[in-house]
Amino acid sequence: MKKNKTQIKVRYQETDQMGVVYHANYLIWFEIGRTAFIEDLGFQYHEMESAGIVSPVVDAHVYFKQPIRYGQNAYVETWIENYDGLRTTYGYEITNDLGNIAVTGTTKHVIVKKDSFRPVSLRRSFPDWHQAYTNALGED
Amino acid sequence: MKKNKTQIKVRYQETDQMGVVYHANYLIWFEIGRTAFIEDLGFQYHEMESAGIVSPVVDAHVYFKQPIRYGQNAYVETWIENYDGLRTTYGYEITNDLGNIAVTGTTKHVIVKKDSFRPVSLRRSFPDWHQAYTNALGED
Amino acid sequence: MKKNKTQIKVRYQETDQMGVVYHANYLIWFEIGRTAFIEDLGFQYHEMESAGIVSPVVDAHVYFKQPIRYGQNAYVETWIENYDGLRTTYGYEITNDLGNIAVTGTTKHVIVKKDSFRPVSLRRSFPDWHQAYTNALGED
Amino acid sequence: MKKNKTQIKVRYQETDQMGVVYHANYLIWFEIGRTAFIEDLGFQYHEMESAGIVSPVVDAHVYFKQPIRYGQNAYVETWIENYDGLRTTYGYEITNDLGNIAVTGTTKHVIVKKDSFRPVSLRRSFPDWHQAYTNALGED
Repeated sequence: MKKNKTQIKVRYQETDQMGVVYHANYLIWFEIGRTAFIEDLGFQYHEMESAGIVSPVVDAHVYFKQPIRYGQNAYVETWIENYDGLRTTYGYEITNDLGNIAVTGTTKHVIVKKDSFRPVSLRRSFPDWHQAYTNALGED
Repeated sequence: MKKNKTQIKVRYQETDQMGVVYHANYLIWFEIGRTAFIEDLGFQYHEMESAGIVSPVVDAHVYFKQPIRYGQNAYVETWIENYDGLRTTYGYEITNDLGNIAVTGTTKHVIVKKDSFRPVSLRRSFPDWHQAYTNALGED
Repeated sequence: MKKNKTQIKVRYQETDQMGVVYHANYLIWFEIGRTAFIEDLGFQYHEMESAGIVSPVVDAHVYFKQPIRYGQNAYVETWIENYDGLRTTYGYEITNDLGNIAVTGTTKHVIVKKDSFRPVSLRRSFPDWHQAYTNALGED
Repeated sequence: MKKNKTQIKVRYQETDQMGVVYHANYLIWFEIGRTAFIEDLGFQYHEMESAGIVSPVVDAHVYFKQPIRYGQNAYVETWIENYDGLRTTYGYEITNDLGNIAVTGTTKHVIVKKDSFRPVSLRRSFPDWHQAYTNALGED
């Protein structure tokens, strides 16, 4: 199964007064991992948007194992957990400098028309993405 | 079951170029609902922190039903979904101006010592919170 | 001179590991004050955007006098510092619970077409805003 | 004069519904540039914090020349604009992919004790930082 691993340097702004990365920021790191994963497949998410299509999140599940602190590096690993031609579920694992798992999770996405938020089929509208996603999942 | 309903005015900063509230911000809105719920019970989260205790999130589940846009108002309703003396799971429902459900979700929390992140029992360390949480859940 | 005063409740997410509100967030609070000020004049910024016009910031100056902490309330006071028909400079003063000044600043704005970012005259395109801004500045 | 240039990849979360990077985020990018500049000098800001010292912002001035959009890369260049042993003013210039200037600005900082926010002299408390800052400014 294809995976992408991207390094993230903790921003001071991302910490809270608990002295750790504020939990909502991990969804932003998932987004960074997802973008890098898509680029690894040879695509650019912003090109999809130029075609009038956006990809909102349907649901998100996040499991916080241990905190990440400022001064540490983090690594987000991203893969396709599930894909059916309409919905894509990405899986994520964030590790710290020591290789310990800090956060895991998934986000499920559809694609819709930007103006109406009406659903669109990835398979039919972006057949090359469809093929790459199918390959990345290991189903070809 | 006790519930708190808090109005949230969308901030321009919370939107993204999709023209809707960026999805990670709903976790921040959950935090606003949770804080208001706790205050409704007669407590202040920052007083817990003054006692050297913080309350990190263990997991979060978010379901995005429909987008919220700038210029709209949102309402976050919060309740205790589950509580066992150690872990508290809060439930959330965010609605828009028209009363339509936009986002639902849960977050599970423990309390830990701020310096060591060692777990602490809410029941033993904060018996008055424990009592209020038990009552709010409808188990007394 | 017309002024608007809006209460802001500090969000946990807005703190950083210094234990105070992260400095960039005050620009977001300025935006909240500015929006409330405009609504006090009888307008809605999002209606301007519906007409294909956006209002980017040209410059911002922020003076941090003392930190604001979680558990405190803040108040942002907003007024028009300068207005010439094209550019509007808003002034801001953020105070804490005790009435002490925490942050002051200004932001200067123009209005532009959303698609091209070409400048537009507020005076000519939105004469009712122009009149209200002129009045709010005390020049009529 | 010593300068550091750091690449920043625009995050989707950093955009707003104007379709560009939300203006307050440039202060976060300044922070990223500042951190990289300090590391170039051989120091780590988080080590200063481990010694019980934090470095709040005294004032910030930001000039927005042209917007940066998602899908573009940005570069933040950072240098010491002024330093007197107590206060450090950093200068910043953010450019886009084409080398055009998008944002410029300065932030002035002091260092204070984390628990009391009482000012501390960088020259006396961190003589090696003092020397490096003096050198970086070109005054040796």
